[in-house]
Amino acid sequence: MHVMILGGAGMVGRKLAERIAAEGGLGGKPVEHLSLIDVIAPATPHGFIGTTDCTAADLSVPGTAAEVLTTRPDIIFHLAAIVSGEAEMDLEKGYRVNLDGMRFLLDAIRAEQAANGPWKPRVVFSSSIAVFGGDMPDVIDDAYFLTPGTSYGTQKAMCELLLADYARRGFIDGIGLRLPTVCVRPGKPNLAASGFFSNIIREPLVGLPAVLPVSDKVQHWMASPRATIGFLVHAAGLDTALLRGRTSLSMPGLSVTVAEQIAGLEKVAGPKAVALIKREPDDRIIRIVDTWARGFDTSRAAALGFVAETAFEQIVRVHVEDELGGKIPVLG
Amino acid sequence: MHVMILGGAGMVGRKLAERIAAEGGLGGKPVEHLSLIDVIAPATPHGFIGTTDCTAADLSVPGTAAEVLTTRPDIIFHLAAIVSGEAEMDLEKGYRVNLDGMRFLLDAIRAEQAANGPWKPRVVFSSSIAVFGGDMPDVIDDAYFLTPGTSYGTQKAMCELLLADYARRGFIDGIGLRLPTVCVRPGKPNLAASGFFSNIIREPLVGLPAVLPVSDKVQHWMASPRATIGFLVHAAGLDTALLRGRTSLSMPGLSVTVAEQIAGLEKVAGPKAVALIKREPDDRIIRIVDTWARGFDTSRAAALGFVAETAFEQIVRVHVEDELGGKIPVLG
Repeated sequence: MHVMILGGAGMVGRKLAERIAAEGGLGGKPVEHLSLIDVIAPATPHGFIGTTDCTAADLSVPGTAAEVLTTRPDIIFHLAAIVSGEAEMDLEKGYRVNLDGMRFLLDAIRAEQAANGPWKPRVVFSSSIAVFGGDMPDVIDDAYFLTPGTSYGTQKAMCELLLADYARRGFIDGIGLRLPTVCVRPGKPNLAASGFFSNIIREPLVGLPAVLPVSDKVQHWMASPRATIGFLVHAAGLDTALLRGRTSLSMPGLSVTVAEQIAGLEKVAGPKAVALIKREPDDRIIRIVDTWARGFDTSRAAALGFVAETAFEQIVRVHVEDELGGKIPVLG
Repeated sequence: MHVMILGGAGMVGRKLAERIAAEGGLGGKPVEHLSLIDVIAPATPHGFIGTTDCTAADLSVPGTAAEVLTTRPDIIFHLAAIVSGEAEMDLEKGYRVNLDGMRFLLDAIRAEQAANGPWKPRVVFSSSIAVFGGDMPDVIDDAYFLTPGTSYGTQKAMCELLLADYARRGFIDGIGLRLPTVCVRPGKPNLAASGFFSNIIREPLVGLPAVLPVSDKVQHWMASPRATIGFLVHAAGLDTALLRGRTSLSMPGLSVTVAEQIAGLEKVAGPKAVALIKREPDDRIIRIVDTWARGFDTSRAAALGFVAETAFEQIVRVHVEDELGGKIPVLG
């Protein structure tokens, strides 16, 4: 198979490429060729037995998608997007990258079909729980209406609709996954409003302080990077007829409070790690987080075989295994 | 006030302009100027005391919306769209007219604000119950997710999301109305799959035969042209803060079976009219109609003051009053 990852330089894209490289395939099927594309050239994953090409290309520029797709990948992971904060600050850029990028991709697939004959790639689109916002029930099921509270969420919701329409019309074999907040996100602390969910775990585990800007009672929906990559891999191999035209669905995750996160950290790394968390309430972040979804009924995703962690302690241990080589620098 | 109607040459646009002309205003507020815009120049409504300009302009062409909006209307009714059948046949045209047209409009409002200072028009957008499709409950409430079964419905759903985002960001004062199927639609029989709902009433009332291509048991959601214009007029004057960020809503209507339609016709015009209905089942139309919504819970719209007919007989009588001068050529 030929697998293409759009947004291959991002955290999820990199981890997905590494997983494909490590397994030499996707869902048991061998992958001979990997195309990694992003606005900056992605890195070649370590130890991949097949061929890789890493390309710097901006899919929000008309014509780029058409060039890239002449290679006719079997599976396209579309993960390319600008994040919520940037889409809110720069309206034009958000709609250009997050919405037009998707439309250019789908229309380039049609154009390639029209020019060079039948080809129907699987398109796995990374949507987000940000398609929900405002007043919401504590548990949101897959028949609940999309009420984005940000431009980012609006663009993801619009892309879900486009994906479903192009799939219905037979141009693609499409599936959209509403990814939970990724926790523990590896790397440095960032300025995203959701960053603290990861910072308060990742930093104390290596003996560094972390700021908690919200109350312990804040509840949120999260999954580990490993589980997130698992969703994408599973989606690539799923029989999409089982979606019965409902192309996008909310992925499983864990609905936890910040207090439960901290308890999980303590179980794995002890009270010394917990003591590194500094409470510094930030009204701006409190207001933003207050508009986010807290929990989902993902029985549909579960029935389709998608799985995530079931306790926060597991999420902490996955981080220790995958990012810290199984060792915890701070203990006791 | 200055009122602009985009799609002013269509049936709904014409009737809205006539209503404003007849009342000299909108929701009790005087209207001094009417701008009517469509791809073909709309007609000036009869008897309007203010000034009217009728312009042929294609809003799906970049730059057109910006030119048109330099006059800064207080209220913009955006009714311009190509219909379901055409959007299904011509994918590019559907997305260009129905989606890009909306985006150009909203971005032209932003550009006008940036260039010439504050101005925040009320934008009343005509969405459609076609945002729902596929497997649906018999009664759809305003928290049910949008599952369009056509490209037209997809485009309307995407426009609802855009409208909400631009309203949330403060560029417009927006409201989207999901209009029921208009019945009895005046004019000639057309080839739209939904045409028969009107044909089987309008044609027999003037002594002409009409074809019924589906079963008597088919159930659908409809409102008269008069009620539809009433929704738009009411939306123009509504306090949009009451929408609490949920910018679009399903309008009231009547959930009736074809059998109930025919019974209503008989009550008003007698069995001779009913005898003009010819049953000619058409599998293509049966399959399309089978994917349409049958009923809605519109308690939210009702609480906001939107009203429609409550019995099909009323819908027939409205047609007789508004289109036939109160007289029924066929009786008995």
